Amino acid sequence: MTSKVSTIDVHNTSSAYYAPATVAPGGKHVFVSGQAGLASDGSVPTDYVSQIHLALWSLRRIVIAANANIQNIAKLSVYIVDYDAANRKHTRPLMRFLGKHRPAITLVPVQKLAVPTWLFEIEATLVLPTIDMPRALPAPKVAVDVVIIGAGLSGLTAAHEVLRSGHTCVILEARDRVGGKTWSQELEDGKGVVDLGAAWINDVNQSKMNALAKRYGAELIEQNTFGDCVLQDFDGCCSKFPYGEVPMFDKDTRKHLVEIRDMVEADCQNVDAWGPRDPSLDSLTFEAYLASRGADKIALATAAVWTRAMLGQDPCDISALFFLNYCKSGGGLLTMRSDRKGGGQHLRVRQGTQLFAKGLASDLPKGTISLSSPVQNITQRGRQQADLLAGGVLHSARKVISTVPSPVLKTISFNPPLPQEKIAWSTSSGYGYYCKAMMQFSTPFWIEKGFCGLAQSFIGPASVVRDTSSPTDKKHILTCFMAGDSGKAWSTLPQQEREQALLKQLQALFTISDLQRSFVKSYSYEWNDDEYAAWGCPSISLTPGVLSGVGADAFRQPWKNIHFAGTETAGEWKGYMEGAVRSGERAALEVVKDLTSGVVARL
Amino acid sequence: MTSKVSTIDVHNTSSAYYAPATVAPGGKHVFVSGQAGLASDGSVPTDYVSQIHLALWSLRRIVIAANANIQNIAKLSVYIVDYDAANRKHTRPLMRFLGKHRPAITLVPVQKLAVPTWLFEIEATLVLPTIDMPRALPAPKVAVDVVIIGAGLSGLTAAHEVLRSGHTCVILEARDRVGGKTWSQELEDGKGVVDLGAAWINDVNQSKMNALAKRYGAELIEQNTFGDCVLQDFDGCCSKFPYGEVPMFDKDTRKHLVEIRDMVEADCQNVDAWGPRDPSLDSLTFEAYLASRGADKIALATAAVWTRAMLGQDPCDISALFFLNYCKSGGGLLTMRSDRKGGGQHLRVRQGTQLFAKGLASDLPKGTISLSSPVQNITQRGRQQADLLAGGVLHSARKVISTVPSPVLKTISFNPPLPQEKIAWSTSSGYGYYCKAMMQFSTPFWIEKGFCGLAQSFIGPASVVRDTSSPTDKKHILTCFMAGDSGKAWSTLPQQEREQALLKQLQALFTISDLQRSFVKSYSYEWNDDEYAAWGCPSISLTPGVLSGVGADAFRQPWKNIHFAGTETAGEWKGYMEGAVRSGERAALEVVKDLTSGVVARL
Repeated sequence: MTSKVSTIDVHNTSSAYYAPATVAPGGKHVFVSGQAGLASDGSVPTDYVSQIHLALWSLRRIVIAANANIQNIAKLSVYIVDYDAANRKHTRPLMRFLGKHRPAITLVPVQKLAVPTWLFEIEATLVLPTIDMPRALPAPKVAVDVVIIGAGLSGLTAAHEVLRSGHTCVILEARDRVGGKTWSQELEDGKGVVDLGAAWINDVNQSKMNALAKRYGAELIEQNTFGDCVLQDFDGCCSKFPYGEVPMFDKDTRKHLVEIRDMVEADCQNVDAWGPRDPSLDSLTFEAYLASRGADKIALATAAVWTRAMLGQDPCDISALFFLNYCKSGGGLLTMRSDRKGGGQHLRVRQGTQLFAKGLASDLPKGTISLSSPVQNITQRGRQQADLLAGGVLHSARKVISTVPSPVLKTISFNPPLPQEKIAWSTSSGYGYYCKAMMQFSTPFWIEKGFCGLAQSFIGPASVVRDTSSPTDKKHILTCFMAGDSGKAWSTLPQQEREQALLKQLQALFTISDLQRSFVKSYSYEWNDDEYAAWGCPSISLTPGVLSGVGADAFRQPWKNIHFAGTETAGEWKGYMEGAVRSGERAALEVVKDLTSGVVARL
Repeated sequence: MTSKVSTIDVHNTSSAYYAPATVAPGGKHVFVSGQAGLASDGSVPTDYVSQIHLALWSLRRIVIAANANIQNIAKLSVYIVDYDAANRKHTRPLMRFLGKHRPAITLVPVQKLAVPTWLFEIEATLVLPTIDMPRALPAPKVAVDVVIIGAGLSGLTAAHEVLRSGHTCVILEARDRVGGKTWSQELEDGKGVVDLGAAWINDVNQSKMNALAKRYGAELIEQNTFGDCVLQDFDGCCSKFPYGEVPMFDKDTRKHLVEIRDMVEADCQNVDAWGPRDPSLDSLTFEAYLASRGADKIALATAAVWTRAMLGQDPCDISALFFLNYCKSGGGLLTMRSDRKGGGQHLRVRQGTQLFAKGLASDLPKGTISLSSPVQNITQRGRQQADLLAGGVLHSARKVISTVPSPVLKTISFNPPLPQEKIAWSTSSGYGYYCKAMMQFSTPFWIEKGFCGLAQSFIGPASVVRDTSSPTDKKHILTCFMAGDSGKAWSTLPQQEREQALLKQLQALFTISDLQRSFVKSYSYEWNDDEYAAWGCPSISLTPGVLSGVGADAFRQPWKNIHFAGTETAGEWKGYMEGAVRSGERAALEVVKDLTSGVVARL
């Protein structure tokens, strides 16, 4: 605390005659200069929405540098060039940035800003609370070598690796069950399950899941790709096309679609899986990237089907570099989207994917997992000394492996505080709207009509539909993926109307009437309301500027005694079970290496 | 301190429905309304830069009225009409206003402001620190009638006058020497001196210096004006012209130059030396004043040579009224700039001008001067009761004469605080860049080539060069005056390169090659780094608005028991030794009168 107005600087600002922000004496008030949309290399993308994302990213960096958070913003002023009241492009990124926090805001349309290329500028006033002194912690009750946070596939895998190395460990799990985002629910008649979360693996390039499938006797169901797929166009009209081909648009459109798709495929193959680096690609939204490469309306709508089905996001909400890197982690856009051998959605598990977590958990020594133990506080007191407070119990460990999705870090208090890069990542990362509804029918009507069950829609409510039946159990199921804007609109309906809307869409897609008669029941779960899933599924996304602002390693890198895992940190198959398992192995390896070298050093 | 939002008013604002500023309950937060560039009579100059200076002046007034200072500014918003990103005119005055303080700033280009003629508006948020309680002072150790601050010519003269009236006094001098901005340094061989500071007097209208010269046996050296002068044009080309004439431009240019020069001369003669009053002239920079009177590029460059050589300032940085008044104090532009009889630069002192201060000091009773005693605090407890803390010693006095340049007042804490007008003056006043380099040569090569040694340059590094040789000592010296922007650029060079740049310029000016051979040594001193000189030399300048905002007497007027002297307060020969001596006499007279009447009143 200082008695003067002090300045906050970020990289390359200390030579300017003004500061990015000032802190008032006493440290409670922070004044942030207008922030514009500059890429990490200082360039300014011409795209309007990309600039907004980048300006918000700059603001976030300063907020973090001020030891503040978004909830401390009391006032915003937004300056907009070429403002169009009929097309308020700033509201969407701004609402996402603010979450549920509602500051005072003034919007000022202007003719120009300080630099001719700037289209958007945002200024903020923050007020911070008086800082509470940390309360005294209880005495440690549990002392182990490693505490693992989260009993999903990542944490369970890590526990096996740690124990195998001869070290002790416990897993602290916030939920009352294991499995994290794998969660299999029995059908009403007790025969067969639906997967409320992760559902698919493959046996080609997912070696870890393939091994687990063999170990735990998973009965695999191959995804059905025989028969026609369906496309629902902007006007609601539906048309058939063979699996693996491009929908039946006119010739030029199909050619254009293939070109755009192949360009994305080629571009994502050029991105480094572990260390994507391209300030220019990262300065653009995926939509701006596509538009800058000439994508037309159909191509943009098709890309929206990709981003919605894969991440629950619309293309205007995520960084182009982030999306390309995400695709790359799963072998590329084509592989990740494929339902065939080696693709992202090739094989399902008849017993449900929670089989893996349950199996891994039951193979651990009794007492290894503490359920219903959300971690509240992590205090690091020195080398290989960390105390974790969870459910009122203090756990003492030499090393910590956190497997929670990055946004969950916001709910844990760290002492000392997390480094700025990790705060920036965990507060920037977020989920789009994403909800699966497993619609059970008494007959596989789509098969009978020559469809494979795969459908995609430009208008929703479901962006994508897939067959997730279990033939052995005689369970006929279509899983509808509601995601992004159209999914979010659907989610606001009452339960009854939600089902009706889906039935109506399925009738249109598969040219069948009176589906109500064969409809049995729907199963779904709102991951977006699940705190321990970081309010979403399947994977976080990043807005423009973050990846190149803090680096692709920012979240994954160990910090003091804490190591970070979870599918989000994987280089291969991010957002998939395979990525989770691999990340758990990687983090356990880091920890074991440090623990071992630590022992040597102490001699 | 109040529990309500209270208003701050300055002159003529209390009838408006808004306040110039408000203070939040508790007194720590101050919110300043947008300030535009109004002259003290409410008029708005059309000139852009002049408006910026005036708006900053308004802001300064409010900052002072809030008992705050520039360092308390947390946030600025700048609104600019006709903003041109390629010509950011606001940065220069704003950077000078802020000094090293770096608030958060947002710049908003706008189409127009509240009043059609406004081109610039600035809004501020200030946060003040919690005020420390003043520490208890030690017991007084010295008690005299008068404490004089500063042992320059002004303070030494005042001491003689005070003692002559039968009162006791001490002089507190911050430096370890007497003389202030007169400082003579012996040449390396011990024969002859150079004057690092003030150098010239005359024997026509500088009666005080003339008397001192006689009293202390100064050997006077007449400035050499025989032979040709040199002008270095924008392109670096040099041309000769006889002393006292206009450089050899084409006929029209020469005519125009003479007209502009004569206009400035006439206008300055119309300005009152002691009480300049002309809100219109004071609302303009000297550059805007010249431009509004049709000055062309050559005339503006010539005027820059004047302001640089006289004040270290560029014409865009100072008030027209201030400059005209400054000229008037020295008899007018022509007299002040003249090197001939009666001019500002007619006679030098072979022994160096510090001779005067040393002489005056040695004529004072032992113990009158305390060297190395910078004044930290002045507490006034009542009529003819003032305590001065200097170098850990408390001096008690009935009267105080401060002879320090006004910016030095910022370094002294006053209890009670200085009145707003004096704070406004002392925080507004400042020095431009100004540095003399005395270049000693083994031969007077310029004389041999028919030059008098006087040169002026539009490009620098030296704006003006003068012969400051001492023929008796056989010392051949050219003094280069680096001032304003071109001087500041030169000052950033390493010492070796500084000399080389000057040698190169002198070679061009005097059409001589290989000056290195006859170059002996250079002597100079960075007054801009000297705290006790108020970071500059020879005189402070004022930006538009100050003189008419607080009045020409604002700094000079006595306040409680403190009287103010120093060459800056002189009506005649401001910035010269003559002005210093006169101001010391004037302040001593004020003090003696009060002390005497005080005695009478007590009877």
